[in-house]
Amino acid sequence: MPDTTVLETFPTPANKPFVIEHIADEFTSLCPVTGHPDFGTVILRYCPSADGGCVELKSLKLYYQSFRAEGIFYEAVTNQIRDDLVAAMKPAWLQVVTDWKGRGGIRSVIRATHGDVPAEWVSVDR
Amino acid sequence: MPDTTVLETFPTPANKPFVIEHIADEFTSLCPVTGHPDFGTVILRYCPSADGGCVELKSLKLYYQSFRAEGIFYEAVTNQIRDDLVAAMKPAWLQVVTDWKGRGGIRSVIRATHGDVPAEWVSVDR
Amino acid sequence: MPDTTVLETFPTPANKPFVIEHIADEFTSLCPVTGHPDFGTVILRYCPSADGGCVELKSLKLYYQSFRAEGIFYEAVTNQIRDDLVAAMKPAWLQVVTDWKGRGGIRSVIRATHGDVPAEWVSVDR
Amino acid sequence: MPDTTVLETFPTPANKPFVIEHIADEFTSLCPVTGHPDFGTVILRYCPSADGGCVELKSLKLYYQSFRAEGIFYEAVTNQIRDDLVAAMKPAWLQVVTDWKGRGGIRSVIRATHGDVPAEWVSVDR
Amino acid sequence: MPDTTVLETFPTPANKPFVIEHIADEFTSLCPVTGHPDFGTVILRYCPSADGGCVELKSLKLYYQSFRAEGIFYEAVTNQIRDDLVAAMKPAWLQVVTDWKGRGGIRSVIRATHGDVPAEWVSVDR
Amino acid sequence: MPDTTVLETFPTPANKPFVIEHIADEFTSLCPVTGHPDFGTVILRYCPSADGGCVELKSLKLYYQSFRAEGIFYEAVTNQIRDDLVAAMKPAWLQVVTDWKGRGGIRSVIRATHGDVPAEWVSVDR
Amino acid sequence: MPDTTVLETFPTPANKPFVIEHIADEFTSLCPVTGHPDFGTVILRYCPSADGGCVELKSLKLYYQSFRAEGIFYEAVTNQIRDDLVAAMKPAWLQVVTDWKGRGGIRSVIRATHGDVPAEWVSVDR
Amino acid sequence: MPDTTVLETFPTPANKPFVIEHIADEFTSLCPVTGHPDFGTVILRYCPSADGGCVELKSLKLYYQSFRAEGIFYEAVTNQIRDDLVAAMKPAWLQVVTDWKGRGGIRSVIRATHGDVPAEWVSVDR
Amino acid sequence: MPDTTVLETFPTPANKPFVIEHIADEFTSLCPVTGHPDFGTVILRYCPSADGGCVELKSLKLYYQSFRAEGIFYEAVTNQIRDDLVAAMKPAWLQVVTDWKGRGGIRSVIRATHGDVPAEWVSVDR
Amino acid sequence: MPDTTVLETFPTPANKPFVIEHIADEFTSLCPVTGHPDFGTVILRYCPSADGGCVELKSLKLYYQSFRAEGIFYEAVTNQIRDDLVAAMKPAWLQVVTDWKGRGGIRSVIRATHGDVPAEWVSVDR
Repeated sequence: MPDTTVLETFPTPANKPFVIEHIADEFTSLCPVTGHPDFGTVILRYCPSADGGCVELKSLKLYYQSFRAEGIFYEAVTNQIRDDLVAAMKPAWLQVVTDWKGRGGIRSVIRATHGDVPAEWVSVDR
Repeated sequence: MPDTTVLETFPTPANKPFVIEHIADEFTSLCPVTGHPDFGTVILRYCPSADGGCVELKSLKLYYQSFRAEGIFYEAVTNQIRDDLVAAMKPAWLQVVTDWKGRGGIRSVIRATHGDVPAEWVSVDR
Repeated sequence: MPDTTVLETFPTPANKPFVIEHIADEFTSLCPVTGHPDFGTVILRYCPSADGGCVELKSLKLYYQSFRAEGIFYEAVTNQIRDDLVAAMKPAWLQVVTDWKGRGGIRSVIRATHGDVPAEWVSVDR
Repeated sequence: MPDTTVLETFPTPANKPFVIEHIADEFTSLCPVTGHPDFGTVILRYCPSADGGCVELKSLKLYYQSFRAEGIFYEAVTNQIRDDLVAAMKPAWLQVVTDWKGRGGIRSVIRATHGDVPAEWVSVDR
Repeated sequence: MPDTTVLETFPTPANKPFVIEHIADEFTSLCPVTGHPDFGTVILRYCPSADGGCVELKSLKLYYQSFRAEGIFYEAVTNQIRDDLVAAMKPAWLQVVTDWKGRGGIRSVIRATHGDVPAEWVSVDR
Repeated sequence: MPDTTVLETFPTPANKPFVIEHIADEFTSLCPVTGHPDFGTVILRYCPSADGGCVELKSLKLYYQSFRAEGIFYEAVTNQIRDDLVAAMKPAWLQVVTDWKGRGGIRSVIRATHGDVPAEWVSVDR
Repeated sequence: MPDTTVLETFPTPANKPFVIEHIADEFTSLCPVTGHPDFGTVILRYCPSADGGCVELKSLKLYYQSFRAEGIFYEAVTNQIRDDLVAAMKPAWLQVVTDWKGRGGIRSVIRATHGDVPAEWVSVDR
Repeated sequence: MPDTTVLETFPTPANKPFVIEHIADEFTSLCPVTGHPDFGTVILRYCPSADGGCVELKSLKLYYQSFRAEGIFYEAVTNQIRDDLVAAMKPAWLQVVTDWKGRGGIRSVIRATHGDVPAEWVSVDR
Repeated sequence: MPDTTVLETFPTPANKPFVIEHIADEFTSLCPVTGHPDFGTVILRYCPSADGGCVELKSLKLYYQSFRAEGIFYEAVTNQIRDDLVAAMKPAWLQVVTDWKGRGGIRSVIRATHGDVPAEWVSVDR
Repeated sequence: MPDTTVLETFPTPANKPFVIEHIADEFTSLCPVTGHPDFGTVILRYCPSADGGCVELKSLKLYYQSFRAEGIFYEAVTNQIRDDLVAAMKPAWLQVVTDWKGRGGIRSVIRATHGDVPAEWVSVDR
């Protein structure tokens, strides 16, 4: 089972809003139907809230690793990470994007969001 | 004839809106005039609705394969995929983009949309 | 003279708005001052109207080829293509972008538009 | 001194607004402090006005070349080009972007604008 | 300790708003936990104010170098640079983006902003 | 069955050796086990012989298209194309490289050669 | 333990030498010291021998997957794959290249070879 | 007819061998069968001889432009350029590579060479 | 002073020659003249010998970090790493390539080698 | 006139052969015919000799800058740099590659070499 107990957070170091993005290129879980491994990139973006916290990087890595032996669909992985991290961090805004390598000639990208996009994100150079 | 009977869906795994993108690089149909094969990429993006469903990946692949012997124009392919998938999935928003390899030095991209673009899509990093 | 008589159109295959993009990498005309050839890419984007039509691909290619012996400036090429195609297709929206290879170390891109940008275009992934 | 007398313009060939972009990869001036050459790209974008004009390409090239022996800061180059071209062309909108090669591990991009961004520019595919 | 005393500014050379971007690819500090070096790119964007100033490039380089022996977290680096430069330059708008090389398979990008995004920035070609 | 009867050749236009390369990005056949389509690029390189011929481009395209309904393995496709073209063209040297899109996370490239690599090929800038 | 029993081979389909390359982007094993997952790409190249065989693609995929729970060093993985496949296929030439994602800012590539490089490989366009 | 009379040469400026490469991205001729324009890049490489000459750049451009209205096959263009330039320049080594845009999904590259590859070419970083 | 005492090695895991490449993107030292930091990538390639060893990755990282406060020229860094690692590993072949970021518009790459290039390296796909 | 008096050298720091490459992206001179500026990249590669020296980087930069006001052809620039640096450094091997931006749609690359290519260069990963 994905292990949320490894998740650690620390208070936001700034009294102004800012946006954090963590890009994990080495995510892997298992297909619940075939049992074959799935590989993808998980992009986490969030704006910490004053009463919430920032996720500690090593704990995020361990949380992602806890999916390694899990049989779970793309859509479910994305929503579970969104929900687990929202519960742990209480962010003002959070977005999870999972980008999966091809299966049968089809690549997939799933996006789940919590809260409203902050101006700090909209204004960044895309 | 393109075969919509192979399409299977499953209920959305989340009670919050999210966006799914499937990119199929191996689409091929036939030119209705010359009979020569056309090759392209089909990008499907949608936001599932509470009473609709998500398309199952392998069934989507089989549906695309059913165009392999079909003589059909770029514009018609794009609109038919849009209409077939809207009928099968009843999504809140759906977009089909077909990107075709060159013919006579001209490449073509066709875009068809159903419903209003959800905030979850607009906010993603482009 | 650029030849608009070769342009052929067909009725839009959909009763809903959609967006078509044709990218021609092999456009060439002549510099009206020096007579030297100019080379560029012509990007055509449009949203067909219910009472207008879609341009047939081979006829578009022949129309572009009719500029091959024409001495004409970048700005004039772009506006003429915009006006000729608007006259032939009566589109809801049409955009012509010409992207020219360098001359004297300066590359040029000219953009001309007819009508208002449709939501179908604004919403696409850029 | 940068030489604005070489700048030539011609009337806009269209009675509708359109957007012109000229990208010059071969701009060089001198650092006013060290005297060492600076190298950069100058991107000019503008929307001609009915009573103004379009800049003639060769004259623009000669104007840029007149900075070759000039000792001038990045910020000043960008604003001077903006002001000189606005004076010569009376455009509805004009934007100058200078993109400079690295100095001491820092690359710089300066952007100066005149007038409001036209819909023709906003709507282009970025 | 990061050294703000090296920061020098000069008055804005223009009486109109414009946007300056400095991209430093050679930033390094130390991880406060392991003591191992962190490497990243620091992107500074700002719009100078009439009563504030522009940061002098060499002084900015020396300021960045003063982090070389500093043990400090990604989030704190980003907010400190934002606050130090806002104090020194009193800009109308300022944005700091730090893009860090991977640690344990996770890359990070932190964005901190001061003031409202100016139209000059929003309108640039992204 | 792949159809070699469509292959046409013409005499080499030069009395000196030279090298011809044709890159077909739109090759498709079927997996003999699953019946699912395979997609790949076929690169043909050859040096015509004085008593042999050059393959005519349209006939080569039709020959490749004749694999569209064929169930055949990667390795067999590559060797059959090599053998069919050697029989039709009697080249001094011929090389077939097939580059297949991924299946189950594994991409494949197969290379088959006839004759000795000519100096004209070895010497070119690769 | 890596499982060689899943490896299946089939006789070479050609009586002439040719070269096969399989590129697996989704290889993962565990670091024997920290237990953290390692991720890499495994490139297999070989020239089948008359009395040996070609490795069947799905069996190769299963063999690679059997490293998923294995604690093993980069150098050992590369040599074991080389030795296991040489034993199973008796190839005329075989090369294994493993390309590993970064650890502590250092990426690694390991190359192990069996037999002499065939002319078919040397001559291909690299 | 391609016009060799425009070709001008000048004596080699060095008493040691060296290698010159001219890459023309804007070559166009006509298909002798369909009359449709062909577009490609022509790469010329040569090592001047003591008693021969170097081709003057503007004259080379005019020579290439003289193919604009010529109906001629890829293979013939390549060999004619090789022969015309060898006659005009008497080089120690000369190589012509023509790289043609796709027709019917097939791109082509033709290479013709005169003389032996000089060490100066083999040793360069390719 | 660069610290060779941190270097650790382990015996080669194979009784056949193979080639190992470690690419460190995060190398930094100081310019001995200006004291400003230099940044570069260090590529180490070697073929272990039967009586020598393989360098342990973490110890290599610590060795590279020991240059962080060292004032030393590009050429000297490259030769010192070559000599230090040859002394520690007694390899059959070893190559050090340092690739430095630009200074004053000039990038530098220095290459130092020990021993003869092994066939295993020459034959790999570069 | 190009100024060789600014060139400074220092003795090679190693008693073993090694190869140094300096890549200058910001070279500019003038066309001797039109007086228009030419822009290019100058790549210098050499193997110092025991009795010769290494070129000091800042002096190389000043030497290149001394071409800024010089009217000189591509071929002559390349050979002069080769000859000036050989005279100043007495290298075992030296190679100069000049890569020029396009003129009239034709880019040029000139290569001049002194001495025999050392094994250290041939063996490096290019």
